[in-house]
Amino acid sequence: MNNKKQNSALKVNEGIQQPPNINPYLKFKKKNKIQSPEFYVNGILEKDLSILSQAITIVESNLNEHRLIARSIIQKCLPLSGNSFRLGITGVPGVGKSTFIEYFGQLIIQNNRKVAVLAVDPSSERSKGSILGDKTRMESLSVNPNAFIRPSPSGCTLGGVARRTRETIILCEAAGFDFILVETVGVGQSETVVFNMVDMFLLLMLAGAGDELQGIKRGIMEMADIIAITKADGDNVLRCNLAANEYRNALKYLPLPESGWKPQVCTCSSTTGHGLNELYEIIQNYIKYTKTNKTFENRRKKQAKHWMYESMFDMLKENFLTNTNIKQLLKNYEEKVILNKINPIEAAEIILNRYYENFIKK
Amino acid sequence: MNNKKQNSALKVNEGIQQPPNINPYLKFKKKNKIQSPEFYVNGILEKDLSILSQAITIVESNLNEHRLIARSIIQKCLPLSGNSFRLGITGVPGVGKSTFIEYFGQLIIQNNRKVAVLAVDPSSERSKGSILGDKTRMESLSVNPNAFIRPSPSGCTLGGVARRTRETIILCEAAGFDFILVETVGVGQSETVVFNMVDMFLLLMLAGAGDELQGIKRGIMEMADIIAITKADGDNVLRCNLAANEYRNALKYLPLPESGWKPQVCTCSSTTGHGLNELYEIIQNYIKYTKTNKTFENRRKKQAKHWMYESMFDMLKENFLTNTNIKQLLKNYEEKVILNKINPIEAAEIILNRYYENFIKK
Repeated sequence: MNNKKQNSALKVNEGIQQPPNINPYLKFKKKNKIQSPEFYVNGILEKDLSILSQAITIVESNLNEHRLIARSIIQKCLPLSGNSFRLGITGVPGVGKSTFIEYFGQLIIQNNRKVAVLAVDPSSERSKGSILGDKTRMESLSVNPNAFIRPSPSGCTLGGVARRTRETIILCEAAGFDFILVETVGVGQSETVVFNMVDMFLLLMLAGAGDELQGIKRGIMEMADIIAITKADGDNVLRCNLAANEYRNALKYLPLPESGWKPQVCTCSSTTGHGLNELYEIIQNYIKYTKTNKTFENRRKKQAKHWMYESMFDMLKENFLTNTNIKQLLKNYEEKVILNKINPIEAAEIILNRYYENFIKK
Repeated sequence: MNNKKQNSALKVNEGIQQPPNINPYLKFKKKNKIQSPEFYVNGILEKDLSILSQAITIVESNLNEHRLIARSIIQKCLPLSGNSFRLGITGVPGVGKSTFIEYFGQLIIQNNRKVAVLAVDPSSERSKGSILGDKTRMESLSVNPNAFIRPSPSGCTLGGVARRTRETIILCEAAGFDFILVETVGVGQSETVVFNMVDMFLLLMLAGAGDELQGIKRGIMEMADIIAITKADGDNVLRCNLAANEYRNALKYLPLPESGWKPQVCTCSSTTGHGLNELYEIIQNYIKYTKTNKTFENRRKKQAKHWMYESMFDMLKENFLTNTNIKQLLKNYEEKVILNKINPIEAAEIILNRYYENFIKK
């Protein structure tokens, strides 16, 4: 296991020392008084990163009153968003994602862009704590005034993290960040989620480390618009070049992405800087290519539609669970299900029928 | 990448040759006439594996008419289910999951149990095809009359796979299978989903293969009740023993599971059979331990409650999407969102308000 990450995660968790059911935003509420949506929107437009951070914390909150404010902030920011490039980055732990972002992020800034780094990392089921302490592993980037790094919201399901990240992208864009990196831990369902919110997908891979072990599933390879073999320095260069050729061959057997773009394979090193400029170049070519054939725009449209549906499903659930009449009913049937007096599906049907028949206000 | 699996997956997909939007169950419908729920329930109770398979296909279907029959079958099977042991198994590709199940499954049968092997493997986003061809990699087990192997339903989201697998467990149990193995591909959100439907969780690990690369996140380690180091044979034995000790140490830093059970670490080999009996023994101890302190029962109760909520959310969504009045509205607003005339969240709010105000039958 990755001890560096593990230990720091353990420390963080030891430090918290609170029962898992306490909502972290109660703490937040005490510290920072909640302001009006306008306050946050103005702060964001003035590029005040502290207010941006506070607004994101509200977006990440599960409290109902925060959700309402969050929705209002997002709606006001939406018309000011979208003029960015959104890049998804994935790769298994150990591939060097953080180091890559640390250096590639600075290269982006050298090209007169402002970069925001977000993470989609559904947290540990039991400890409800986020595992990665990204900020501490991107020392130079995190203090650069043209960079903004935000770790994954903790204590959420994957769906929850997804919604919050999508909303956070909007706020960052409204605050002037025009290059959004969305990082995710390789090899899971979270890639699909990130794929649905970015313009391009970058897969980081290691050379010769036993490819089976990298646990990269075909589905993830299929999503990649670029594969970059990392750690291409010293005596590893040859192996990286061989690996790059292997992946180039493997890609031939996969269907082309919808954009028609032929996925590129390159090698890079965060230590020597080798390949980073080339990678930036490939990204520029990709943008040109997909903007010309309109697939850039089409992908964004599809994502907006997807987002509309996700929002509806979220609200549907929220309205149901917060209906005051339903609460007692849920409690009663929970009890019955636990005591095995009724099966879960039957209970669900009864509750829903009651909900539709009696409890929805006309 | 794992070439063996890749190639076979590619072949399977090449063979299908159908546009991705065609529902696979339309094909099924033509081939097998849908029978009454009683037909399937009787077949299941008579332990007819062909009818069990057909019933599972109905459970996996997305068609509305199939969902109604499926729900009825499940409700009738539920009182006859539950008398089994449900074991979740995870590990990254390459750890030898299929080979392990091939041999461990036979050991279970030697102990006079009947074993069902299910998989939770959310399929590739783009090709919508299942990646693993498990059955072909479990040659002896798949032809054993006391075993039943069912690959993961394809073309579903993780939530969809989860619901279907939970329902399939019920059908298999009603058909007399009393040892259920639920396999999942390591390192993703799917572990959490499997964790919520099994009694015990087994994590397979490789020795000395660069632990970082195994991509096992702390969250998954925390879920494990047993860690088994695989491929402990030949000159790999020493490394496996060292790894086992390392994991024993690592586990000290993790909180104990809710059951109070201290997670065990062992080594095993599917080639020599080493450690498999010991593993079976540990499982028996776990069952005794958790049944004595009632955590076995409590975990099942919690899972039933969780299932009730999941079913409600599914039905809520289903009722919404199949409401005839809402369909045109959805189409109109999809269009507006795509043309950027309205933002996705606002559109979602408007549609839902209309739905609540006008379209729900009293």
